[in-house]
Amino acid sequence: MTDNQDMIRPGLEGVVAAETTLSSVDGEAGELVIAGYPVEELAPNATFEETAYLLWNGELPGGGELKSFAGMLASHRTVPAATLALLREAAANGVPAMDALRMAAGTLDLDGAAGGSEPAVRAAALAARFPTIVAAYWRLRNGGEPVGPRADLGHAANYLWMLRASEPSAAEARALETYLNTVVDHGLNASTFTARVIVSTGSDLVSAVAGAVGALKGPLHGGAPGPALDMVLEIGSEERAESYIRSKLARGERLMGFGHRVYKVRDPRADVLAAAAERLFGNGGDRDLYRLATKVEETALALLEEQKPGRRLQTNVEFYTALLLHGIGLPNDLFTPTFAVSRVVGWIAHAFEQERAGRLIRPQSVYVGPRGRQWKGTP
Amino acid sequence: MTDNQDMIRPGLEGVVAAETTLSSVDGEAGELVIAGYPVEELAPNATFEETAYLLWNGELPGGGELKSFAGMLASHRTVPAATLALLREAAANGVPAMDALRMAAGTLDLDGAAGGSEPAVRAAALAARFPTIVAAYWRLRNGGEPVGPRADLGHAANYLWMLRASEPSAAEARALETYLNTVVDHGLNASTFTARVIVSTGSDLVSAVAGAVGALKGPLHGGAPGPALDMVLEIGSEERAESYIRSKLARGERLMGFGHRVYKVRDPRADVLAAAAERLFGNGGDRDLYRLATKVEETALALLEEQKPGRRLQTNVEFYTALLLHGIGLPNDLFTPTFAVSRVVGWIAHAFEQERAGRLIRPQSVYVGPRGRQWKGTP
Repeated sequence: MTDNQDMIRPGLEGVVAAETTLSSVDGEAGELVIAGYPVEELAPNATFEETAYLLWNGELPGGGELKSFAGMLASHRTVPAATLALLREAAANGVPAMDALRMAAGTLDLDGAAGGSEPAVRAAALAARFPTIVAAYWRLRNGGEPVGPRADLGHAANYLWMLRASEPSAAEARALETYLNTVVDHGLNASTFTARVIVSTGSDLVSAVAGAVGALKGPLHGGAPGPALDMVLEIGSEERAESYIRSKLARGERLMGFGHRVYKVRDPRADVLAAAAERLFGNGGDRDLYRLATKVEETALALLEEQKPGRRLQTNVEFYTALLLHGIGLPNDLFTPTFAVSRVVGWIAHAFEQERAGRLIRPQSVYVGPRGRQWKGTP
Repeated sequence: MTDNQDMIRPGLEGVVAAETTLSSVDGEAGELVIAGYPVEELAPNATFEETAYLLWNGELPGGGELKSFAGMLASHRTVPAATLALLREAAANGVPAMDALRMAAGTLDLDGAAGGSEPAVRAAALAARFPTIVAAYWRLRNGGEPVGPRADLGHAANYLWMLRASEPSAAEARALETYLNTVVDHGLNASTFTARVIVSTGSDLVSAVAGAVGALKGPLHGGAPGPALDMVLEIGSEERAESYIRSKLARGERLMGFGHRVYKVRDPRADVLAAAAERLFGNGGDRDLYRLATKVEETALALLEEQKPGRRLQTNVEFYTALLLHGIGLPNDLFTPTFAVSRVVGWIAHAFEQERAGRLIRPQSVYVGPRGRQWKGTP
């Protein structure tokens, strides 16, 4: 195969579409690097504002920079009135949360901020407004009224405030922040790639982000942390773990929360989230559920190795995502939208990177249909 | 380079990302095939409804099928009330037409039709509503009120009706139909590819189409037929053509309407649109403008060959797009939205094809950033 020939790669497996300084995923070594930091260094320590600044600027902020950056994010949390009106309409029509987020994200340039001319302000306005949309929609869908943002709270704490109308504990906010940092970027996944393709035409950030939400909502991408948690809750007690998992495997069913297309060893994000869950649950949460989950994980890994040797099915990010977000009090339906609240920061970073690359992404197709048909007139 | 190595292809040049039966673009031969029909066979003859049916079903409809298909399209032209409210808000905020179309397209599953479970109905509702959005927004932005669709008119004629509130002539409707057929599909361009990436995650048609509008609005994709027309109008008379173009080339400026990344001979779509323009302008339109345009084209091609020999810069689709749409009475600002009114049918066809392929599109990136950074705490 020479450079001059077209290469047929449906799915684009093994094709490198971009150089990036944002994240490095090594599935064999089980390593995830985010802008230079191993995920286990960055995620439990940084505020989400620090992580966003790092991805958008390549370096962590100094104290003064952090203050003004966090202030800019906090001052852009309110969404346009028409966006809120659209969410009301969506709630009245029973639109699923990810579709509502896609609709609303696409309207964020109705006012000056997200569509304005200053890239740093556009980015801040978009990232700041995702939690507002998700929280407002959650409350509207459940018959409540949106709760306005509070500028005195950090990004993660304010999200929980807008969801609950009560202040989260420091431990809850820290746990959420660790989650948001952990999943903020992960190479050229399909939503990030969507954002890059859109921006590569010279289009804008709102278009890129709205398109990416549309990709993330697909079940092959956004994942399903919910079912992993459901399994743990269904098992209910440690002594039932083995029989439950054995019969699930005997029926040929997939164990949710295990196995990943890229990682052939334990997903490094699972470690970070498991440690965060242990801290959170040790801090007054449901210690029994945490112990049960670790027992389920241990049993599942042993049985997968016994029954599917060589498949290298390891704990993935979903298993402890579900446990951690459940521990913070988020219902299953908010898992994927909360993923988007984090990943939008990665999308924006990739959009900036693609803009600097300045290259249209435009693959080829190969035509396998008929030829030479002649027009015969309408019958 | 072996199959096992990753191939670095920023821009994905020469990488085949899909097999398709929808269109074949041969830039060396100057051939465009749409679902088996050379574009010059299909475009001047088919109604746009026939073309849409062809792309979505692989065959032209029989008489009964056409009637029920056209009826389904006609019955889904009205957009949800919340979509119209959003367009009013966008007009009040001076949002550009393509951004308004992207916003509105993303809301089309607010009611049952575009988000419903029957793929044929979803597709029809989306394609039927694009003209309604574009026309309503055009009127709102210009201080008017939207004009409702008329089910007794065909897709193209109804679009002109909604723009003008007066019935177009048969010649105008036919000219627009020829344009819509000509640009309905063109391989894996960036907007079509965006739609396929989004659908490849298992996401839905509205997400795919909204994402594709976002890609199409980029200046490297949606093109700029307007400036090609502006040049003709600025030249004003045949005897000024040579001196005008000579001095433009001497200043190193690009001639809009000439040159294409794929076509190295005359874009076959230019022929189809030139013939349509000749018919339209011969039919009571501005014959002088048509003659001037052909003279400008002839002069431009001669001077490009003289001054840039070997560059093979030929007339592209934009030159006669501008002339034809201007002849129908569309202002420049409607050229790209009208392109979207056509191309949405191609996006939907590709989305269906990608769904059948059932494969996640997920390329790789290569990390070129720092490694091994350690957390040192906030300064």
